[in-house]
Amino acid sequence: MEKMEKRNTDLWFTEFQTQNMQLGLKIHNILKNVQTRYQHLLVAETIEYGRLLALDGAIQLTEKDEFCYHEMMAHIPISAHSLPERVLIVGGGDGGILRECLKHDFIKEVTLVDIDQEVINSSREFFPSISCAMDDPRARILTMDALEFIKENQNCFDVVIVDSTDPVDFAAGLFQSPFYGDVFNSLTSKGIVIAQTESPFAEPALLKQAVSEMKTAFKQVAVCLGYMPTYPTGMWSYTVGSKFNDPANIVNRPCNIKTKYYTAEIHKASFVLPPFVREIVEMEGDR
Amino acid sequence: MEKMEKRNTDLWFTEFQTQNMQLGLKIHNILKNVQTRYQHLLVAETIEYGRLLALDGAIQLTEKDEFCYHEMMAHIPISAHSLPERVLIVGGGDGGILRECLKHDFIKEVTLVDIDQEVINSSREFFPSISCAMDDPRARILTMDALEFIKENQNCFDVVIVDSTDPVDFAAGLFQSPFYGDVFNSLTSKGIVIAQTESPFAEPALLKQAVSEMKTAFKQVAVCLGYMPTYPTGMWSYTVGSKFNDPANIVNRPCNIKTKYYTAEIHKASFVLPPFVREIVEMEGDR
Repeated sequence: MEKMEKRNTDLWFTEFQTQNMQLGLKIHNILKNVQTRYQHLLVAETIEYGRLLALDGAIQLTEKDEFCYHEMMAHIPISAHSLPERVLIVGGGDGGILRECLKHDFIKEVTLVDIDQEVINSSREFFPSISCAMDDPRARILTMDALEFIKENQNCFDVVIVDSTDPVDFAAGLFQSPFYGDVFNSLTSKGIVIAQTESPFAEPALLKQAVSEMKTAFKQVAVCLGYMPTYPTGMWSYTVGSKFNDPANIVNRPCNIKTKYYTAEIHKASFVLPPFVREIVEMEGDR
Repeated sequence: MEKMEKRNTDLWFTEFQTQNMQLGLKIHNILKNVQTRYQHLLVAETIEYGRLLALDGAIQLTEKDEFCYHEMMAHIPISAHSLPERVLIVGGGDGGILRECLKHDFIKEVTLVDIDQEVINSSREFFPSISCAMDDPRARILTMDALEFIKENQNCFDVVIVDSTDPVDFAAGLFQSPFYGDVFNSLTSKGIVIAQTESPFAEPALLKQAVSEMKTAFKQVAVCLGYMPTYPTGMWSYTVGSKFNDPANIVNRPCNIKTKYYTAEIHKASFVLPPFVREIVEMEGDR
């Protein structure tokens, strides 16, 4: 009689990136799996990408590729501002963008406003390499609705970074013009805002909407792109609104911090858009 | 008694991009599913990306995103050459790169050498928008082993484009230095070669190997990057070897063809590498 082959446990995390597209990551184990007051929170140990944080089934970050997203979100607006000292992060409770902002000596205070304390706690517990700057004396971490917070803090911040989840449910307002108007008012006179605005391939309508709504508040709006392997299609868009400087130009002092993705050359290159993306955001050609 | 909910047929194509990472695409139907003399060939109708061609389970192209890859593979080397007239495509039996090359009036002949006639036939049958240039009088399509062909054709081509499948099985030799030596000999005095060299995130060792083996034949070797949603991680590398010009510079006349991804600005931007990629390919910084 033949001996049966020994089988291994086969565990997978699967994200429905759209209704018709899935990313599956093989996992060793689930470390946390809870419903918070606001969303479903999962921490899993993947084989390909290290630890993963998912909210409502959507990957927010993995240990292996988080630097691509966090470096773009922090260093693009900081480098395009001549002297940023005070930064507001809307969402971003994992602390990844906070960590990047605080790499710069000239940043005096970073305020992080996340609605969900459980995200902050889970990052502290399971992602020490990402939450590592939360105890920096320049970090101010608040648990509340950023849409309310921003209304009460006018002319306060040089840079606002909108690290939202996908624009559904409680985050839906973050892609809309009333919110961008409040962001405008919360910024100082040469202030800059950056927002993650989804994949031009998977969600072109959302990108188009974000650009057009940001333009109702900001005269200068530009889109840049970055690689992000675990986000749908791997091509991620960031929309930047500015009161003064062109976001594509670097006006800050030379960036001498240690990075794995962002450089001054990457900054400039990321604003070069393929024609199919220019068409979505209705921007003029570069030639 | 409650009525049972009506269920829809749920069909998926799944690629194991690595052992621990899958891309799943929902499909309407399978149009072709055969074992050719060389590989397994699948044509499916996906909902997200239109029709898909997979060889040995790996996505080669989809109708929706093929332009990203095909435009980079064709227009990068053509634009970096001062007067390219004769092009060789190794593999590429679908005809996508052929179509892009023949958009340029100054290209006099494109020779496409694919080992598998079934790939060519399937593209003609199922992908008319990709195979559309196969009947151009400047196209010369051969079904044979490109490794043999290239040895017998010295000093013949201004540009060689290596559109290989992943470097396993019969395609393994395409990432190795004896092949690049043959490519060097097949090129004219200012000749340029480009090869697809996998994802820096998913297969850094393959990229590193390709660069180092290409350097044994070519003095000038440069790596550029492009978005490619349906390839693993969405971040794709292309390695370019040149006998004369720096591949990152455009020396050809202004490119006035219609494209959706490639532009002169994208050309330059694609050679700007994030530090983590520079580290893989052991290239110096750009600052």
